[in-house]
Amino acid sequence: MAVYTDVTDSELEEFLKAYDLGRLLALKGIAEGVENSNFLLHTEAGYFILTLYEKRVAEADLPFFIGLMDHLAERGIACPLPVKGRDGTALHRLAGRPAAIISFLEGIWVRRPKAGHCQALGAAMAQMHLAGRDFPIHRANALSLASWRPLFDTSRGRADTVEAGLADYISAELDDLEAGWPDNLAGGVIHADLFPDNVFFLNDELSGLIDFYFACNDMFAYDIAVCLNAWCFEADNSFNVTKARALMVGYESIRKLARDERDALPVLARGAALRFLLTRLYDWLTVPQGALVTPKDPLEYVRKLRFHQKVTNAREYGIDL
Amino acid sequence: MAVYTDVTDSELEEFLKAYDLGRLLALKGIAEGVENSNFLLHTEAGYFILTLYEKRVAEADLPFFIGLMDHLAERGIACPLPVKGRDGTALHRLAGRPAAIISFLEGIWVRRPKAGHCQALGAAMAQMHLAGRDFPIHRANALSLASWRPLFDTSRGRADTVEAGLADYISAELDDLEAGWPDNLAGGVIHADLFPDNVFFLNDELSGLIDFYFACNDMFAYDIAVCLNAWCFEADNSFNVTKARALMVGYESIRKLARDERDALPVLARGAALRFLLTRLYDWLTVPQGALVTPKDPLEYVRKLRFHQKVTNAREYGIDL
Repeated sequence: MAVYTDVTDSELEEFLKAYDLGRLLALKGIAEGVENSNFLLHTEAGYFILTLYEKRVAEADLPFFIGLMDHLAERGIACPLPVKGRDGTALHRLAGRPAAIISFLEGIWVRRPKAGHCQALGAAMAQMHLAGRDFPIHRANALSLASWRPLFDTSRGRADTVEAGLADYISAELDDLEAGWPDNLAGGVIHADLFPDNVFFLNDELSGLIDFYFACNDMFAYDIAVCLNAWCFEADNSFNVTKARALMVGYESIRKLARDERDALPVLARGAALRFLLTRLYDWLTVPQGALVTPKDPLEYVRKLRFHQKVTNAREYGIDL
Repeated sequence: MAVYTDVTDSELEEFLKAYDLGRLLALKGIAEGVENSNFLLHTEAGYFILTLYEKRVAEADLPFFIGLMDHLAERGIACPLPVKGRDGTALHRLAGRPAAIISFLEGIWVRRPKAGHCQALGAAMAQMHLAGRDFPIHRANALSLASWRPLFDTSRGRADTVEAGLADYISAELDDLEAGWPDNLAGGVIHADLFPDNVFFLNDELSGLIDFYFACNDMFAYDIAVCLNAWCFEADNSFNVTKARALMVGYESIRKLARDERDALPVLARGAALRFLLTRLYDWLTVPQGALVTPKDPLEYVRKLRFHQKVTNAREYGIDL
């Protein structure tokens, strides 16, 4: 949750002159997204989300993110649609920061996803993968294999304060992944952060995907691996094969996985687990004690990683081969 | 800003069955209010604010707060209207906490109020004072004179870490106020926290008063004193008599102050300054370093208090006697 920047009424009124949205009626900071400042904006034209991009998001990446939402929404993907100003562009400046207005998506994120939600997610993800194929901008995944070792180095010295032996455990896993990471799989634009809080449902129907600020070009199957971790483990860290199968069935109802993509799922799931383990570990060791935002437990991802290390083939994720 | 409690989709759907608001469409935590968890709630019936009362608000006080908003809104005061459930009551439970749905008020709070805003505030405050006269529930001001010394005692030992000599300064001021605090002034229900962020405007017209969770029975002129502090000082701590006069003109356009109320304004303004100085000092010494919510500077209220200590009569606040 985040509202980092206060917007004054006079700045906002000036900003809105660049749009054709009528009179300003209300603005409320909302607790959504951890990278940016987000506001609910009400004008005579309706309800919108106003996002101010804080320094954790590279300004050079904004045309990718904004352009991608525009591209996907045009192709029928339920995602926020950037609102263009009178000048035809969606990216402006407010309070000294890049800012955009996007459409307000209805829906609620599901705290305890069932298999049906996983199936809907799989289908929506595959639709997004297909819809992104002709998106012309490229953005490398800044949180993939090459970044993990430098990220680990920032936490390595204190990793064992979180769990004894954690530094050695991560180090060995990094060696394995660097040796065995696939590089010839089908790829394109992926979301890369499709956790349950980024997927809205209305009456158990998927109503939208949000928060494209980790989207990038990478292997499609890596997006699936992120979701296997984020959607298919129970609170006790057991893996729910029914949900995983539903996710795969949903995905393959839209886009079939190739043989090499299936085979790579265990190693991709390990990599996806390590990626979130490393960023959570960094936050855990960096966020001050007592801060209002409680960092997420990195050990949850150690447990997921341990599960995947024992998986030898995709059948164990619910895919029949 | 605050969202302390997460509400699950299933809890929320159950909760909404007690209301006649149609299907749930969206829920977003909003960064408003520091005592409670607040959400923007969208249903087929429209947009609302859902509030979960956290433990800083005494449950026994909720009938006062909810009943007061209902009472004032019925009498035409622009304030949130509590939405009643099918059982005819506005207070229910959600996620283990007392919860209420109130109407969504349009408007923006003004970061740099001008004299015109102060005049509108004064009039709205007086209207509220009059409209509350026949409200049947009584709630003592928990943050008035009697509470200041015990509150000070919790910070006294570390007060000088904020500014050298602060403990002695506050102690002497407390002695003065305890000796000279008025007790026979006209009173009734006051808001007690009418800071600019609790007053909405649309195109420079006052559109609503919000956040009644400090409302209580106390002297009407004390509410004015809180506003003199909150609205009439410039960023450099100079007192803007034009704004103060506008506030008083607005107030007296609705309700005339009696002689004893005018005469008491300097001491009431000192008390109001000390009340916010003490709560800010407590938060300053208590909120952990690095927390996302930066505590407000207590010294701002030391400077306001020093100003009021030099004021000998209400003329200096812009009231011609």
